[in-house]
Amino acid sequence: MDLSGMRDTGSELTHYEGTEKLLEIWFEPSGKSDIPDKVTHDLKAIPRERLVELLGLVHCEIVSEKCRDDLHAYVLSESSMFLSTKRFILKTCGTTTLLNAIEPIMKLAKEFCDFVVKDLFYSRKNFFRPELQQVPHQSFASEVQYLDTLFDNGAAYMLGRINGDCWYLYTLDNTNQNQPDQTLEILMTNLDPKVMKHFENTTGRNGKDVTKESGIADLLPDCQIDEFLFEPCGYSMNGLLPKDGYVTIHITPEEKYSYVSFETNIEMKDYSEFVKKVLTVFNPGKVVMTLFASKTAKCGTSRKALREVFMDTYRRHDRQFSEFQCYDLTFATYIRDDIV
Amino acid sequence: MDLSGMRDTGSELTHYEGTEKLLEIWFEPSGKSDIPDKVTHDLKAIPRERLVELLGLVHCEIVSEKCRDDLHAYVLSESSMFLSTKRFILKTCGTTTLLNAIEPIMKLAKEFCDFVVKDLFYSRKNFFRPELQQVPHQSFASEVQYLDTLFDNGAAYMLGRINGDCWYLYTLDNTNQNQPDQTLEILMTNLDPKVMKHFENTTGRNGKDVTKESGIADLLPDCQIDEFLFEPCGYSMNGLLPKDGYVTIHITPEEKYSYVSFETNIEMKDYSEFVKKVLTVFNPGKVVMTLFASKTAKCGTSRKALREVFMDTYRRHDRQFSEFQCYDLTFATYIRDDIV
Repeated sequence: MDLSGMRDTGSELTHYEGTEKLLEIWFEPSGKSDIPDKVTHDLKAIPRERLVELLGLVHCEIVSEKCRDDLHAYVLSESSMFLSTKRFILKTCGTTTLLNAIEPIMKLAKEFCDFVVKDLFYSRKNFFRPELQQVPHQSFASEVQYLDTLFDNGAAYMLGRINGDCWYLYTLDNTNQNQPDQTLEILMTNLDPKVMKHFENTTGRNGKDVTKESGIADLLPDCQIDEFLFEPCGYSMNGLLPKDGYVTIHITPEEKYSYVSFETNIEMKDYSEFVKKVLTVFNPGKVVMTLFASKTAKCGTSRKALREVFMDTYRRHDRQFSEFQCYDLTFATYIRDDIV
Repeated sequence: MDLSGMRDTGSELTHYEGTEKLLEIWFEPSGKSDIPDKVTHDLKAIPRERLVELLGLVHCEIVSEKCRDDLHAYVLSESSMFLSTKRFILKTCGTTTLLNAIEPIMKLAKEFCDFVVKDLFYSRKNFFRPELQQVPHQSFASEVQYLDTLFDNGAAYMLGRINGDCWYLYTLDNTNQNQPDQTLEILMTNLDPKVMKHFENTTGRNGKDVTKESGIADLLPDCQIDEFLFEPCGYSMNGLLPKDGYVTIHITPEEKYSYVSFETNIEMKDYSEFVKKVLTVFNPGKVVMTLFASKTAKCGTSRKALREVFMDTYRRHDRQFSEFQCYDLTFATYIRDDIV
């Protein structure tokens, strides 16, 4: 994550914003009859150099990649990008300008795949230091203002507390028949410095060592892991699971602004025990959790699949359940007992 | 509602903000032993002239009142005030400055009743014209900033859409054992002009006539109604129900910014049929609904008590269910089919 030039460890003013901006777009064929011959209805048909151009607009670059027939997974200088047949995911941290990618990816999807947008999700937790972001990312209100120029059926929400930790979502208010989909995100702050030691690149350990020794490798034993350990610190991993499945973890270990994000679309009927495992590995002081479940998701509603997390060491702060046209969402925040 | 001098029907620039600010405070004895002799643990012991002073700070005044042993209900120049033994409710519209009342009512409750705040709810829908409000009411962010100077355990939320209709709530994040309580609010805009005709004070009808002819009287047949018809238009009513129960309705009929609020703490197991009745009387284009249920409320959770409203003419826009320490809340918005 040093590639952005933001992490200057010599300065008192140093800040690195681990908090990601997350974009997920589902595409579908335009349905028009005048399709050029060379079109393939598959986002993975977009040439790699065009993706590199796209990432340039966002101010990040590819540092590692693992490509399978069903899923292309890229570790970026700031977080991750995933392309499957119809789903595009871009997650970027630091002061990247993720919203710059939306119009270009729509154009690429049209040009190479004859695709149009079917559904879209832009989300993020509140930043530690919003004033350090580039326009329009300094406030969610200005992000919404920009997104509303692209979509006429956008719906913008804020969950959690205005005067505390919160999480923002922009999605489309549409009633398209949707895909079976369930996505869990666990966004952690105030992490245990002892755990974060693993992710400082000063121990002579490589990425594979860190994945194993930190306990990350045991979370989802059957995934193909592509990890990257940054200089002087920071860690990113993409894990490929069967059937278009993925997991991605990004770690900013510095104590002043420690941040870990965990995201997966693995299908589970009940995530409660799994969430406990993740919290045990990272031991965060504060946790924001979200679970999206589409109407056709195998887990049923997100409320059923993400029940109360019972751990002696955590107390629930907030829990909210939202129903959209094609998805529902459970949002919850927990705080470790020793955190005031 | 003409008393505020805001409704100047001769001007193109006329706007009347029907949207209320709503404050509900539950008090409890301080528990200290050095209580003065004259103290009564009852908010109704606060002298009327002190309440009039309090309302002066908010920029409204009493226009009608109905006082019973268990409940004192006041119709105000801008909406309503209710005092029962431990519960204080103040609801004010226009450009009133409701937050000015919080510190003074806390002082009055301490002086006359030896009461301290047990729980608090400040809420409102988004204003039509926030820029016309007085400081700090021009944005919820600035209201929260003020409230945070008074309370160190305040939690502020936004439900609904940032780029559409939304509803704000400030409450206390406490775990006090609480009271059985359930409160329904239905906030309606884009109302049927034919229905609104009833509330223009040009027909020679008095308040009692209007209550009857509009269908309001039939909504809750067993309540003692105190209504007020304003010049040149506008209507307010307080209804007293058994056991500390109340209903209150406020109507701004002007087509450009029509607004009706309905609120009651009547105990029902399922509000769905009742909501339909209210919508049938007023025929709003847009509806924001909230139901609070305390942990000890007879209805169980608000989610169970406010199910989907099935009416052919309305489609659901949003539904969100929030769990707080001592209360839960169901928020929902509906839009009539002919409204784009």
